Amino acid sequence: MLQPPPAEPGMREDEVDTPALVLDLDAFEANLDTMAKLLAPTGAKLRAHAKTHKSAVIAKLQMARGAVGQCVQKVGEAEALAHAGIGDILVSNEVVSPRKLARLAALSSIARVQVCADDPAMVPVLESVAEAAGVRLSVLVEIEVGARRCGLEAGAPAGELAAHIAASKHLSFGGLQAYFGGAQHKRQPEERRLAIAFAGACVERTLEELKKRKLDCPIVGGGGTGTFLHEATSGLWNEIQAGSYAFMDADYARNVEPPPFRHALFVLAQVMSAPAGAGRAVVDAGHKAAPIDSGFPQVFARPDLAYIGASDEHGVIEARDGTLPVLGEKLRLIPGHCDPTVDRYDWYVGVRKGRVESLWPVTARGMMI
Amino acid sequence: MLQPPPAEPGMREDEVDTPALVLDLDAFEANLDTMAKLLAPTGAKLRAHAKTHKSAVIAKLQMARGAVGQCVQKVGEAEALAHAGIGDILVSNEVVSPRKLARLAALSSIARVQVCADDPAMVPVLESVAEAAGVRLSVLVEIEVGARRCGLEAGAPAGELAAHIAASKHLSFGGLQAYFGGAQHKRQPEERRLAIAFAGACVERTLEELKKRKLDCPIVGGGGTGTFLHEATSGLWNEIQAGSYAFMDADYARNVEPPPFRHALFVLAQVMSAPAGAGRAVVDAGHKAAPIDSGFPQVFARPDLAYIGASDEHGVIEARDGTLPVLGEKLRLIPGHCDPTVDRYDWYVGVRKGRVESLWPVTARGMMI
Repeated sequence: MLQPPPAEPGMREDEVDTPALVLDLDAFEANLDTMAKLLAPTGAKLRAHAKTHKSAVIAKLQMARGAVGQCVQKVGEAEALAHAGIGDILVSNEVVSPRKLARLAALSSIARVQVCADDPAMVPVLESVAEAAGVRLSVLVEIEVGARRCGLEAGAPAGELAAHIAASKHLSFGGLQAYFGGAQHKRQPEERRLAIAFAGACVERTLEELKKRKLDCPIVGGGGTGTFLHEATSGLWNEIQAGSYAFMDADYARNVEPPPFRHALFVLAQVMSAPAGAGRAVVDAGHKAAPIDSGFPQVFARPDLAYIGASDEHGVIEARDGTLPVLGEKLRLIPGHCDPTVDRYDWYVGVRKGRVESLWPVTARGMMI
Repeated sequence: MLQPPPAEPGMREDEVDTPALVLDLDAFEANLDTMAKLLAPTGAKLRAHAKTHKSAVIAKLQMARGAVGQCVQKVGEAEALAHAGIGDILVSNEVVSPRKLARLAALSSIARVQVCADDPAMVPVLESVAEAAGVRLSVLVEIEVGARRCGLEAGAPAGELAAHIAASKHLSFGGLQAYFGGAQHKRQPEERRLAIAFAGACVERTLEELKKRKLDCPIVGGGGTGTFLHEATSGLWNEIQAGSYAFMDADYARNVEPPPFRHALFVLAQVMSAPAGAGRAVVDAGHKAAPIDSGFPQVFARPDLAYIGASDEHGVIEARDGTLPVLGEKLRLIPGHCDPTVDRYDWYVGVRKGRVESLWPVTARGMMI
């Protein structure tokens, strides 16, 4: 079962049922425009990350402003977007199961799809899947650039894997995947700059190895909402994979010199209990409604209120000046982390000037496989 | 869109697509039997909490072993269960929106439904909804017993609210909701005992107030997987609301003298990257696949492996003895917290003796409204 839509177009925001995923359309559109404007003078294009928004509608709005395509992390996300008409999709991640790879290759008839690899052992698997599907599959090599997650060693090992891919009959070498996730939330601007300088050195070393092997490198992809201008102005990366920029969240807002985007995504919650004399109010959005992997949500535009505790279906609110919200009151919460929050909902409720303007499905909700 | 089923009956477990929610059916059935056996000699009945399992199939298996009904936290969960034939459902939580209350009252034609209140201001709202629906709605009074969440003050204030409900034309007083969530994970057995002793004193004080007012108290509900034997043997509670007992999780297992249940619920994950010489393997289950509000998942039956970091779609595994799992290997992860983990999936993959035996839908997945 899908969640029932929590609103209808034309409703006032305070009539929306809770908890709901509310998108402030003015702030959201401003964020899309800001990113397009910031990237225009750099050499880099946006390939926005759909792991954040999981929405074919939002993908199309990004591409209408110049994004060259979309990134996803999972084959199920690629399917959801391709089926909705998105024509250029990079799985910016390793896929090792032949069943999943066959599903991805099968999308080639309706979209350009690419995938990453970071292990020579995957080349025969990818080759065999591509051959069976009758396609030439483009494969990027993911290199380790500081994230300490996936990615093989930059330089010669990456160059060798690229050559191995390029020499395969049913594969083509698509470029380098060079994303440093942990750099996005380093709090100090100088820490972020240094992290991407390190990642850049890894990319440069690998590009030299590709040159030695006379291999073209169509894509150098990476960059997130916290660091993208460093990648975009480096002369090394040509595709930026930011996702959160469209929404912002409480964790990005904690960066010193935070990214220049507005809070556009909220969990609308309602006070369901305000026990007399207890000094707290309880809202109907706990960590099932707004995951807390990156900290608690914050109450938007209410510096007097603090969200200080989450259980599965409850959030506890305290008031800094003692004046608590009343029973039934609705509050906008800024999610701690936008990506897993979006993935809890089947619907975006688009709001402008206090009224519901649109209901958009979260097309790839839950598509983890 | 729903997630596609990650398996088919008859498959070997290692053929199940990942990440998947795997239920070890032998362990799960043993847990249901253990709970029935432990509660039998006490005065208390089980009203299992469906916020954990969100499954009509599991609800029916619990009721076949003597559970008198189900608890839920949300009206959407009540709808999902009632539509699947569950006949006795308590919303063990406050519901303040008249639209939601009308949806709940509308279920009265197919199920016995009850709801909680902790505020006198809700009585006219509940009365008006019940009148409009042409039903008599049973309302329990939630009292604060140490959880510092919802619940009004025990004793006279609760007695007054109960009397107010009982005197309403379209409401009946259903009893007391007395659940101490925070007590479940107090690590020391003595801390848990003392917490429930405190809760019991609150219940007792309130029962005296009800007696003064000559009010019957059909239900005294509460108790979770960490403390239920204290409530069940107290002579005060008559309905136990445990949910996690069916599955267990890593957080409950950290209790000193943990509850006597087996790990039955797992996230099956696959190694998607094992960079040479990096000292880590990466699995395809991050915190979107196994939420980390109660800590990281643990690798089942592999004390040599530790899950030491989660991002959205990646989990990082280290080996205590240096021997890492290989690319493509599948691992069972014990979720940090079973409730939000279940709610990430549309399917349970039931496994017995290494083979997939059943696929059950997570009936109330995402039903937060």
